[in-house]
Amino acid sequence: MLQCRVGKRNGPAAVKMALAMYREKLITKEEAVMRVQPAQLDELLHPIVDPAVELNTKAIAKGLPAGPGGASGQIVFSAADAVEWVKGGKKVILVRDETNPEDIEGMRAAQAILTARGGMTSHAALVARGWGKCCIVGAGLIKVNYEEKYFTVGDIVVKEGQWLTLNGTKGTVYLGELPMKKAAEENPDFQAFMKLCDQVRKLKVRTNADTSEDAARARVFGAEGIGLFRTEHMFYGKNSEEPLFLLRKMIHSKTEAERVAALTELFPYVKSDVKGTMDAMDGFPVTFRTLDPPLHEFVPTRIDEREKLAVSLGISLDELNKRADSLHENNPMMGHRGVRLGITYPEITEMQVRAIFEATAELLKEGKKPFPEIMIPVTCHVNEIKHQYEIINKVHAEVCKKFGLKKIAHLTGTMIEIPRAALTADKIAEVAQFFSFGTNDLTQMGFGFSRDDIGGFLPEYLDQKILPEDPFQSIDRESVGKLMEIATQSGRSTRPDLKVGICGEHGGDPKSVEFCHNIGLNYVSCSPFRVPIARLAAAHAVIKEMKSAKTSKPSAKKSAAKKTAAKKLSKKK
Amino acid sequence: MLQCRVGKRNGPAAVKMALAMYREKLITKEEAVMRVQPAQLDELLHPIVDPAVELNTKAIAKGLPAGPGGASGQIVFSAADAVEWVKGGKKVILVRDETNPEDIEGMRAAQAILTARGGMTSHAALVARGWGKCCIVGAGLIKVNYEEKYFTVGDIVVKEGQWLTLNGTKGTVYLGELPMKKAAEENPDFQAFMKLCDQVRKLKVRTNADTSEDAARARVFGAEGIGLFRTEHMFYGKNSEEPLFLLRKMIHSKTEAERVAALTELFPYVKSDVKGTMDAMDGFPVTFRTLDPPLHEFVPTRIDEREKLAVSLGISLDELNKRADSLHENNPMMGHRGVRLGITYPEITEMQVRAIFEATAELLKEGKKPFPEIMIPVTCHVNEIKHQYEIINKVHAEVCKKFGLKKIAHLTGTMIEIPRAALTADKIAEVAQFFSFGTNDLTQMGFGFSRDDIGGFLPEYLDQKILPEDPFQSIDRESVGKLMEIATQSGRSTRPDLKVGICGEHGGDPKSVEFCHNIGLNYVSCSPFRVPIARLAAAHAVIKEMKSAKTSKPSAKKSAAKKTAAKKLSKKK
Repeated sequence: MLQCRVGKRNGPAAVKMALAMYREKLITKEEAVMRVQPAQLDELLHPIVDPAVELNTKAIAKGLPAGPGGASGQIVFSAADAVEWVKGGKKVILVRDETNPEDIEGMRAAQAILTARGGMTSHAALVARGWGKCCIVGAGLIKVNYEEKYFTVGDIVVKEGQWLTLNGTKGTVYLGELPMKKAAEENPDFQAFMKLCDQVRKLKVRTNADTSEDAARARVFGAEGIGLFRTEHMFYGKNSEEPLFLLRKMIHSKTEAERVAALTELFPYVKSDVKGTMDAMDGFPVTFRTLDPPLHEFVPTRIDEREKLAVSLGISLDELNKRADSLHENNPMMGHRGVRLGITYPEITEMQVRAIFEATAELLKEGKKPFPEIMIPVTCHVNEIKHQYEIINKVHAEVCKKFGLKKIAHLTGTMIEIPRAALTADKIAEVAQFFSFGTNDLTQMGFGFSRDDIGGFLPEYLDQKILPEDPFQSIDRESVGKLMEIATQSGRSTRPDLKVGICGEHGGDPKSVEFCHNIGLNYVSCSPFRVPIARLAAAHAVIKEMKSAKTSKPSAKKSAAKKTAAKKLSKKK
Repeated sequence: MLQCRVGKRNGPAAVKMALAMYREKLITKEEAVMRVQPAQLDELLHPIVDPAVELNTKAIAKGLPAGPGGASGQIVFSAADAVEWVKGGKKVILVRDETNPEDIEGMRAAQAILTARGGMTSHAALVARGWGKCCIVGAGLIKVNYEEKYFTVGDIVVKEGQWLTLNGTKGTVYLGELPMKKAAEENPDFQAFMKLCDQVRKLKVRTNADTSEDAARARVFGAEGIGLFRTEHMFYGKNSEEPLFLLRKMIHSKTEAERVAALTELFPYVKSDVKGTMDAMDGFPVTFRTLDPPLHEFVPTRIDEREKLAVSLGISLDELNKRADSLHENNPMMGHRGVRLGITYPEITEMQVRAIFEATAELLKEGKKPFPEIMIPVTCHVNEIKHQYEIINKVHAEVCKKFGLKKIAHLTGTMIEIPRAALTADKIAEVAQFFSFGTNDLTQMGFGFSRDDIGGFLPEYLDQKILPEDPFQSIDRESVGKLMEIATQSGRSTRPDLKVGICGEHGGDPKSVEFCHNIGLNYVSCSPFRVPIARLAAAHAVIKEMKSAKTSKPSAKKSAAKKTAAKKLSKKK
């Protein structure tokens, strides 16, 4: 009975109550931890519209609550405008009939997303939920007029640039900028409760962060290192103009000499980025993934940008266009990306690795405790890692010499995100010192689902119950989970101390965190906002495991069956 | 020593010699079969340039031997011209810097293909090898001038319409029309030798064929059924104009009613196509794969075609363009295709299945022995098959009633081409009556390699020996092969009589055929020209297996180790 009620309590109340009962010794630490559900914690982690003000404000529209928390901003009607306005220092809310993959950058830039059409499995909902971004979808009464840049809802007309406030937890839309209440991260109850979780859990929890700001925020949330730093992130968003231009110069280079020249110009930006983040995570490991996306993603579409680039490269616009076109791919997700770039253009890996080692050396000289982990993406064969390791070792020696150091402590490992890598993990672990599961890509390849294109069929699959749930939300244990089990066991068969983690978005999903605990991973890594949720889920996993061990004890038969299963599994190696 | 020399003998001589020695009882049947290598047989299956003439002719250029045999024709420089000239009764050779998917029809029409750029894994090479068409790629000294329609090689200028002869087995290019020697398919030695192979082999050999002509040709080559009939094939190539138009109408429909109307018009074309092929394969099974490619592949690019379509649908060109744009996908290979179309548009499956059953019923009434197998592509979850089976069963009952039949014998099964399907094969086999491995897609997903885009990195991977060989040429046993083993064993754990085959292009690769034999497949299916090669390779596999069993006998240790390995594998279920 009590447990039933627990679920209905709101987040702050649940935490407060659990903590109070534990302090009065009415419940054990484990019981206290189990009293709060991950979804309740989620409520605490996002700024919310001030409830007192919200109570007295009339919503102009209602939709489905697709991404939690509250947000205010000036409305725009296109992804390009969102990006442009945000560059100009504005806060925006992107309003669309529905979104599609071309809107991604605008969605990323916006404070929140509001769509007139689409359900909980629409493109906007899937993307926003993944990011933990405030989002309302399917607000059907809203009629958007893209050409004249306004929307109507009943008699109300809302024009581009007007302020709107969204409550993404409830799905309500308000005119104007309502006051917000800050997230509860500094709430002492919250911090005390998280400490209980930490005493119980065994999985480490890291964060996916690409900037020193994100790293700092994640530390407040309790992250024990960075599990994924995307080097390409510096080419998106604010302050990206100059490095992006240099990256584009490198991409449109034709000779190695041209490319090396552009990379040399790019080097200081990468180094400063890398150094800032390691500094913010001082004392904890930071996993740097070398360049991952297909290069064509960075090709400029605007003609003025192309012209500028052509001038800088000393080539004609025609020639530039030719080079840009040659980068086009039919299925870029399975194209020339990740380590494939590092092999065809080793100078790219070299520049990145040099930036990491030099930044580390400088921090060491400053008395800091940096610990870089270099991670190779999109690996499918152990030879790819061997190839990259030669570069890493060469640069390591050079940087040590330059800084007069005997060695720079670091690890080198790989993403496991391609089925072939999971299936040949024993060989890969002969070289790689750690694995990190990229379950987004592993799900894409495992299902043959392009995440950008699932809008055409996944909603129907979920409605008709062809699939029980969205495999990008929670790990599919029968397929992706099976590959993870195989890879973890066979990797450790050749390297018993292999460190294994996960840095796909599943790392912040409670059910997936439980699965990661069950199969013996060392850590999960997730977006900063999901860190406390992962800490709680990891604690829940331990308690559930203890409970199920207890209940299965009396039945000798069951426990024997479990042992056989475990034996079978270990034979799979 | 003898074996060494055997390899150097040319194809016809090797077959003749092996047969003669067998007939004189100097060697056993097995020895005779082992005396001919698959590559030697390949030589017999294509017309070749008369060796006596070739010896005295100077080649003007040399490239990589990408497609075997010899061919002569008048040169053209565009796919459209190739199609046009061939329609006018001419024999042409298509000359391009390099080819891309838009050139397919021209490549098909041409006698041979010659490109200035590209390696053994370039588009032209891959396509030509699949078809068994004469092709030379990467003839780097050739400089093509498309505008003025000529190419130069050194001082020689060769203009459109001039005759060229290619030796695709060697990679040599000659001016003029050299005399050819015919292929050996009607050669009695060849037929007698193939009979020896058939007495030895255990694997059945089927063919991939989409037309009654291909089916008839494959029967001459010894095919025992069709393992892959692509329903979409009728929308490409000759006589495709009308059905393609109707397909496009269906694709650009917005309502189910519009779609059903277009499908109803399309139905007779599909039925006649299906019927013709089953008739040509009378007495053998024909596996029909339901619609596989993403719909946007059929969207017309030409404005006049779009206008015609808009008129026929009674919508504006603007509206048509919108509908066409909405079909765009970022990664169509992993997008809305295969069974995903059958689930979101069940009326498409229904039309195809009705065509198959009605054609079968008519053939039965005519006293023929048709045996259709309906195959669902791109399956990742058993529920997808359950969904499609409901449609199949419903239509089956309706057609039986219409034709007064009690039942129409058929099988329903699925492609295994998505890793998840392989990993959950036990569940899928609860419903599917047969599996057919789509190793092209399984390799794409398993490696994360888009076959259309490997040109950017695979040549480098092969040069640097990162990968030992092109995984699209020969099955990678460690990954794709492992998935095939898991799927075969776990599928048969729930359905012991599960029929398992392969219809990817690997079905015509000798090493892959051997692997398929070793893991217990029932059949391989390959393009018509590869059928004799697969028959020989299947016989070789049996003999090699016998030999290795013999040699391992004395060593008790080895055989024990093998048993343990087999046990381990069977536990994986």
